[in-house]
Amino acid sequence: MTASTTSSTAVSRVDDARDVAAPALPSAAHAVHTPLGVREVRLTDGPLASWQSLNASATLPHCIEQIEEWGILDNLRRVIGESGAEFRGFWFADSDLYKVIEAVAWEIARTGTTEFDAWLDDVIGLVARVQEPSGYVHSWIQGVHPELKFVQLELTHEMYVLGHMIQAAVALDRANGRDDLLVLARRFADLLDRRFGPGREQGICGHPEIETALVELYRHTGEERYLALAAHMVELRGQGLLKVGGLGARYFQDHAPVREARDAVGHAVRQLYLNAGVTDVYLEQGDATLLAAMDAQWSSAHERKMYLSGAFGSRHRDEAFGDDYELPSERAYAETCATIADIHWTWRMLLAGGAAGAATYAETIEREIHNALAASIDGGGTRFFYSNPLQQRPDRYSEENAPRERTPWYVCACCPPNIGRTVAQLGAYVASTTADALWLHQLAAAEIDLPADLGEAVVRVTTAYPADGRVEVSVHGHVRDGVRLAVRVPSWSPDAELTSRADGGSGAARADADGYARLPLVDGARYTLSLDLTPRLTRAHHRVDAVRGCLAVERGPVVHCVEQADLPDGVAVDDLVLLPEQGIDVADDGTLTVHCALVDRPDTLYSGAAAPVATEGSPSLDVAAIPFATWGNRSPGAMRVWLPVDR
Amino acid sequence: MTASTTSSTAVSRVDDARDVAAPALPSAAHAVHTPLGVREVRLTDGPLASWQSLNASATLPHCIEQIEEWGILDNLRRVIGESGAEFRGFWFADSDLYKVIEAVAWEIARTGTTEFDAWLDDVIGLVARVQEPSGYVHSWIQGVHPELKFVQLELTHEMYVLGHMIQAAVALDRANGRDDLLVLARRFADLLDRRFGPGREQGICGHPEIETALVELYRHTGEERYLALAAHMVELRGQGLLKVGGLGARYFQDHAPVREARDAVGHAVRQLYLNAGVTDVYLEQGDATLLAAMDAQWSSAHERKMYLSGAFGSRHRDEAFGDDYELPSERAYAETCATIADIHWTWRMLLAGGAAGAATYAETIEREIHNALAASIDGGGTRFFYSNPLQQRPDRYSEENAPRERTPWYVCACCPPNIGRTVAQLGAYVASTTADALWLHQLAAAEIDLPADLGEAVVRVTTAYPADGRVEVSVHGHVRDGVRLAVRVPSWSPDAELTSRADGGSGAARADADGYARLPLVDGARYTLSLDLTPRLTRAHHRVDAVRGCLAVERGPVVHCVEQADLPDGVAVDDLVLLPEQGIDVADDGTLTVHCALVDRPDTLYSGAAAPVATEGSPSLDVAAIPFATWGNRSPGAMRVWLPVDR
Repeated sequence: MTASTTSSTAVSRVDDARDVAAPALPSAAHAVHTPLGVREVRLTDGPLASWQSLNASATLPHCIEQIEEWGILDNLRRVIGESGAEFRGFWFADSDLYKVIEAVAWEIARTGTTEFDAWLDDVIGLVARVQEPSGYVHSWIQGVHPELKFVQLELTHEMYVLGHMIQAAVALDRANGRDDLLVLARRFADLLDRRFGPGREQGICGHPEIETALVELYRHTGEERYLALAAHMVELRGQGLLKVGGLGARYFQDHAPVREARDAVGHAVRQLYLNAGVTDVYLEQGDATLLAAMDAQWSSAHERKMYLSGAFGSRHRDEAFGDDYELPSERAYAETCATIADIHWTWRMLLAGGAAGAATYAETIEREIHNALAASIDGGGTRFFYSNPLQQRPDRYSEENAPRERTPWYVCACCPPNIGRTVAQLGAYVASTTADALWLHQLAAAEIDLPADLGEAVVRVTTAYPADGRVEVSVHGHVRDGVRLAVRVPSWSPDAELTSRADGGSGAARADADGYARLPLVDGARYTLSLDLTPRLTRAHHRVDAVRGCLAVERGPVVHCVEQADLPDGVAVDDLVLLPEQGIDVADDGTLTVHCALVDRPDTLYSGAAAPVATEGSPSLDVAAIPFATWGNRSPGAMRVWLPVDR
Repeated sequence: MTASTTSSTAVSRVDDARDVAAPALPSAAHAVHTPLGVREVRLTDGPLASWQSLNASATLPHCIEQIEEWGILDNLRRVIGESGAEFRGFWFADSDLYKVIEAVAWEIARTGTTEFDAWLDDVIGLVARVQEPSGYVHSWIQGVHPELKFVQLELTHEMYVLGHMIQAAVALDRANGRDDLLVLARRFADLLDRRFGPGREQGICGHPEIETALVELYRHTGEERYLALAAHMVELRGQGLLKVGGLGARYFQDHAPVREARDAVGHAVRQLYLNAGVTDVYLEQGDATLLAAMDAQWSSAHERKMYLSGAFGSRHRDEAFGDDYELPSERAYAETCATIADIHWTWRMLLAGGAAGAATYAETIEREIHNALAASIDGGGTRFFYSNPLQQRPDRYSEENAPRERTPWYVCACCPPNIGRTVAQLGAYVASTTADALWLHQLAAAEIDLPADLGEAVVRVTTAYPADGRVEVSVHGHVRDGVRLAVRVPSWSPDAELTSRADGGSGAARADADGYARLPLVDGARYTLSLDLTPRLTRAHHRVDAVRGCLAVERGPVVHCVEQADLPDGVAVDDLVLLPEQGIDVADDGTLTVHCALVDRPDTLYSGAAAPVATEGSPSLDVAAIPFATWGNRSPGAMRVWLPVDR
């Protein structure tokens, strides 16, 4: 353990905390799946592994630098007279520090690196000095508005900040047993628990986050009161405790009790973090009515309100979900943090055995990781999108939270550190176990340590997926009899066959009804899954007005787009008309080319119903369709995912 | 003149003010057209005349009642100790009172009614008592934040409130020479002019409105300094004087000087009021660079950013214009006040002889009056829409400023009184004159007094338009030789012929290139124009993604829609597919029926490109297409203007 600056009153982690470095560790009672940690699942190759390397070498150091540069640390220092600076940024800016600590923690868990230890000593020491004897620590309240302590819960984000502090502290202790931040976080959590809860003051936070964090703190420490407080806060939501003002109760998900709120509404990140917390409470307490509410919520968010890229939030106003099927491409708010929050929640739904089924949850996470999440960061790892629209007009104004180009930081800097912590923990979403199976949810090159209850083996996954459709799995070591390998077969390649070769003979299986192909897991066996990566044209539900008459190009899990940078001078993205009957070409290097006509006639804003916009005489051209995640890396020009077809 | 409560320091209106009751009276120097007032153009029959009656009997009394009920008057009373109430509503709430006074003024001008005199005595007396000796009167500043007087011009709306005070005062004096409010308004305007202007303090208002009002005050009083101040404020915009904060400079149209700001951006009502003011300054000073900027602005707003209904503002966020071709139906903010502001501006562009041409300006105003404006009020005249979307989803949340149903009032109550003043002055937009012609811009039953320079005659327009396409005009009295009648021929009936019968023979003319059909205006002549009201299917520019693959039904100037109330149980508006090849039926009473198929297959959010959504086996049904202006009068259900066609 590294040097701790905390006092001798430290409450160390309980002895029975499981030593797995995973971001969610539900107890077995109500979880259908058991997660594996980032040490047990090591991404070895391919885009996710490369991304983790970039995260460690570029994104995390960048975040550490930006946290200092934007005054996040000075906000804390000034509380104790160590800085004379003015408070900078938003009142919840402390949370950005905690998210960076959490990202570093997962990186330590993943690789054992010690390069961040001195920085951790520094910033955790700072937090320790700023923390009041009561346990309270929140630089904006302490340093700017001390009179607002716990009096404007709808706005001040105090519990939200504590939630991120807890998540960072738990991650750090799981990573290498470093518990100095955990001591501080527990002090603050204990203060919260003394003040709020059944028979005490009734209060919930305007921005959900504390719920999922308190459940995780319970899991990590074994202290039931944290779970009880989280469950109580879930019960209090929708009771009108928040002074919602002009934003309205839906913004805060305080318009209805969680069991009655079946539609995902209001501020998207808040709804999705809340749902992660509610699902966490279900996982520990097993109240089936909570899971039923979450099933309805999941259906609402994913079957009627999700962008093709795996993004959420149709409205800039209030950063909110839209109505069913309201999914505009150009004004998609599609906040990076909403996709991350959904990964948290959807993973918990998978663990809980929610109604949509593990394959659907896993395919959703895959869609999110490879598209909305991957698009949120540049190739260098130091520039980020906050908002991830699926279309950019040539004349779009570069708004502060939705700039035309990725930018190194934001005044509201929730997204960059959130990306950092998510990428560092990607391994945890790859696989899970049940009593008699190892489940492969994400198809990524990895080494997986089989947990002791299934044997003592390493399972190796070798693949260049999603660039290539061939996935190979080999088993090295002892596997308990009767254990099976369950590999997710994506819905777009339903006929793919999982085959095995082993000393005892060969086997083959197609996906069962639940979307997983199963074969016995045997030492020495080699498995192969070959997926069909033929590019597909995708359409949206007929009620999605925003993309009516358009098709999108997908290949495997990767959504593609057309970008101005690939077009000749004088040709506008918004004048292209896809010619779907001419197919999509795939080059040897995986580059896709679509065939288009070009609208070249003058057009008024409104006119009589007339001929198709492109005619036989219209110019035609071949256009590259690049992965959506890579757009905007060459120029800030126009882009669109959904391409019009002729009519 | 009615009793005045103002003091003896009253500055009465100047003697040379023209005695015409019109909302904009430019001097002849730079105006191509001369307007007529609401006394000279009397709407006699048809929907506009009926609307004016309803306005007088229902809307104006309702507004007077609501002004009291919502505390607008108490806000003033409390400043001088006549009320103990808390301040209520927004800081610019005084403006709602002034807009109601202006509405009453136009009603007095139109009909000579005295029924509002006692109320006017009361409220103008109140304003007089609240006004400080300096001339300052603004109930929120005086009664809540006196320290903010003229120090937060971007937010406090002081000049905006004064602008509405001036417009009301000028209207009242034009109506019947009642000048007590004018005395008060001039005191406040003089205070403004002493403090701000060339060589004095540099300041502009965050919400444009004062510019157009000051020009009108100049026109009414002949005081050059009001025009000079307005022109100076136009020059100051875009210089960065406003502390724009997180809203950004574009919100306030302070991002670029008016001559360089060629795109309509930011808060739509602000942009459009600003443009009315800029055009007013052009009309008086003749700076061609201002008109060129307004031509570009007009093209931006109307050729790339206008809804089919004549509404503006694509975004709820910041109540703003969107990018070019960003025109979502369901999230159209389409604020009623933006359409009204555009009527103000577009009328001034017509008077100024802007590049788009009088026929285009007049047809735009017609589109706005019959659709977006008419939709903003219910059949009873006492319920209003603030936001006028072109589509309502079945599950749409009833937002405060964009409720599912028209509502009697709003916390931000700008729209209802704005409707009241606009309806009362509708006659002023019907006709204009030039040196040798009477121009009929709006086709409405009316009596028009020919101004003295053209003769001494009454011109009668008889028509049931837009229910019927026949428009008849007769002339009674002396007409100067060489004067012509110019009747606008709508662009959707370009071949319509204007014919005349008179003692001297008959005549016939089609529209000239400028869209007006011309014949000599002769005493005793009768003219007939027969317009083709065959329903039309309209499509949008191919870059308008929001309504791609959809058509809208129009008949004459009237946009139609399909509403849930006309559908059988179990059939959803959003599952209809228009079958355009089956035509549109017109019943004897003008009711339109469209023929649709019904999407009846299950559909997932995203799926492979597949068959058309409706097939030969799909159910078909006939559906009423009602005027958009009448939607929502039966139930708050789903509605759409743009109907998908099969693909």
